[in-house]
Amino acid sequence: MLIKNGKVLIFENEDVKVEDLDIRIEDENISEIRNNIKEKENEKVIDAKDCVVMPGLINTHAHIAMSIFRGTFEGCNLYTWLHEKIWPIEAKLTDESVYDATMISILEMISTGTTCVNDHYFFSKQIRKAIEESGIRAVITRVLMDSDSEEESNKRIQEFIDLYETRDKENSLITYTVSPHGLYTCSGKLLEKSRELAVKYNLPIHVHFLESIDEIEDIKQTHGEEAINVLRKYFDGIHTILAHGVKLNDRDIEVLSNMDCGIVHNPISNMRLGCKIADITKYMKKGINVSLGTDGQGSGNNLDMFEAMKIAGLIQGGIHENEEKISAKDVIKMATINGAKIIGMEDKIGSIEEGKKADIIIVDISKNLNNIKMLPNNDIISNLVYNTDGRNVNTTIVNGKILMENRKFKKLEIEKILSKI
Amino acid sequence: MLIKNGKVLIFENEDVKVEDLDIRIEDENISEIRNNIKEKENEKVIDAKDCVVMPGLINTHAHIAMSIFRGTFEGCNLYTWLHEKIWPIEAKLTDESVYDATMISILEMISTGTTCVNDHYFFSKQIRKAIEESGIRAVITRVLMDSDSEEESNKRIQEFIDLYETRDKENSLITYTVSPHGLYTCSGKLLEKSRELAVKYNLPIHVHFLESIDEIEDIKQTHGEEAINVLRKYFDGIHTILAHGVKLNDRDIEVLSNMDCGIVHNPISNMRLGCKIADITKYMKKGINVSLGTDGQGSGNNLDMFEAMKIAGLIQGGIHENEEKISAKDVIKMATINGAKIIGMEDKIGSIEEGKKADIIIVDISKNLNNIKMLPNNDIISNLVYNTDGRNVNTTIVNGKILMENRKFKKLEIEKILSKI
Repeated sequence: MLIKNGKVLIFENEDVKVEDLDIRIEDENISEIRNNIKEKENEKVIDAKDCVVMPGLINTHAHIAMSIFRGTFEGCNLYTWLHEKIWPIEAKLTDESVYDATMISILEMISTGTTCVNDHYFFSKQIRKAIEESGIRAVITRVLMDSDSEEESNKRIQEFIDLYETRDKENSLITYTVSPHGLYTCSGKLLEKSRELAVKYNLPIHVHFLESIDEIEDIKQTHGEEAINVLRKYFDGIHTILAHGVKLNDRDIEVLSNMDCGIVHNPISNMRLGCKIADITKYMKKGINVSLGTDGQGSGNNLDMFEAMKIAGLIQGGIHENEEKISAKDVIKMATINGAKIIGMEDKIGSIEEGKKADIIIVDISKNLNNIKMLPNNDIISNLVYNTDGRNVNTTIVNGKILMENRKFKKLEIEKILSKI
Repeated sequence: MLIKNGKVLIFENEDVKVEDLDIRIEDENISEIRNNIKEKENEKVIDAKDCVVMPGLINTHAHIAMSIFRGTFEGCNLYTWLHEKIWPIEAKLTDESVYDATMISILEMISTGTTCVNDHYFFSKQIRKAIEESGIRAVITRVLMDSDSEEESNKRIQEFIDLYETRDKENSLITYTVSPHGLYTCSGKLLEKSRELAVKYNLPIHVHFLESIDEIEDIKQTHGEEAINVLRKYFDGIHTILAHGVKLNDRDIEVLSNMDCGIVHNPISNMRLGCKIADITKYMKKGINVSLGTDGQGSGNNLDMFEAMKIAGLIQGGIHENEEKISAKDVIKMATINGAKIIGMEDKIGSIEEGKKADIIIVDISKNLNNIKMLPNNDIISNLVYNTDGRNVNTTIVNGKILMENRKFKKLEIEKILSKI
């Protein structure tokens, strides 16, 4: 397959550039990137004229089955939302509702340019089934916690083990994390168990970390120690994906910059749940890898990573007064290569490079009424971050397979999925 | 004209609701709102099935000719941006470039659901010409300042007087403000002159006010008094539109709540220029009218009021930790009825009510792939604010005239305008 005439987004040293290049895909891989590649006989050609060709977006923290809760419970803070609203209603979920809700989210992701998602939920076999049917790349888990009872906790651990042990070893599109819910919802015993599982299966940890101010005290109560010490105690030496990290003090930042971890920034969810704004400008300056997530739609509104990029870029100006802050280029990296790094796949995805897997999206920037917000197009990268949304994505390719072309799905039956709503 | 089968957004007491209603428009006015209105012979009927029918959005602070600077000068703070970047490049503008840039912005506004804009710029006859040709509603001005020289200032005053005196008195779509640029760029003498003009012509004042932290000291230097005292000294008793109001202290808020004024919140521009976030939750609680603006595209990215709504709603959670904050319903009002109030037109526009002018937009919320971010549609008002953008606007009606229907422009020639870019 050949993608011709596009403006290709590439990372060069620390810079982000857009260049006129063609891309050849063979099987799963990007095999060639250069000017004017000549098409072979019978080669599928995608014309990317007036489009940006960029790495597929990597959503590094989501609960994709939560599409079902979209638009609900406005105005709650995190603790009220979680304890009084979400957990009681989640208790009513069924295999079928989770499967259907996951499918909605998969449509949402593929149609808005996400090619890989790092999920954090339960009913995980249903989620895996939907993901397998769709062809999207995903990191999945079965979330662990024991703040209710040891019996429930043991069931969850068994479900995780069962999920992992029943994996399709031929399917490289789906990988796994061990996911204790948070340090305030897991005992030391369960964190220790999580560590054991991560070591045994050689998997990363994916955990909520210092999302809200209430969590700080809560963790002290649960463990008799500060959050950062608890984290280091159980997960030092293990690659750890920290969702949120809103409430980090300077010492936390210092410790994290020396651990094998990264922070997933979820700006929309953080603000909706009254958690304020994570100072990712500072985290990045201190050398911590920061990627981007949407969180679930219950708090994050949607899974459109273009929206998450825009808002992540803007709101640093909400906390940095007359100061340097992250740029549009930094934001693009958060949603792509930094995301690949945080899930431990930077050798395979996150950028358009020869030899990497072909996870690629094609984004329409043509001069027409629907793109009027980009015109005049003085700066393509600024426009990608600030004046685009997921609906500009024409074509989504995962692992060399076209999942959506010119907004038509190749594999999933849209009408059937929508009819379940 | 009859708009049938829509879900109509109405304000009832303090609440915002969506109800199944039909709307009849006769000439410029909304003449009837009720269930199942029967169409008359030869009556134009618009089918608004699967759509929200809502008041046209009112953008109450913009510099619409600035489309030409879209995507430029990222990372500057307000003062650097204004003094070192924008003013030097604005010196190179011509009648033609301002006209063309304004036309781009008019396409942008009409196609994203803005039916009225409160502009703040110069080259104002060119701007007026474009507005007249388009059929959009606007409040225009010729911005005044004298921080450079008295001679230039006098020319500006003359241009304003000339603009106003040459107005088409038959054209109710265009009204005027007197617009000193800011308290830090105008001497007491010019503010006094502005007051005189506002009194003479019976016009509101439209002025930048406490946008950035630097302005606080600057105003003290210029006038020997605090900003709020300067404002009260010159404009007490005159209806005043304050753009930004980011840096208000509690005394400022107290004083403003007793003046005939309102604040235009421009969240995107404020954050891009490192001015942080205005605490509009607090302002509203104290009884100040707060409306919404995009500012110019140079700092505000675009003129899509749906984006401004989304971001205004979200970022209050960036400054209110575990606290009550404005809701999606408040945000909808900011972009409609509060906007009408701030420009002194709440008896004519800003809501769908019998007797008001027909400034109406029709927003697609149908169940299809392009609206996947709204599905399942558990809450229409939440989705309007958080999961929509201007491209969901199908039809835009101003003063009873259809300017865009099903994304086709009726009056303006899109291709011709785009070809100028």
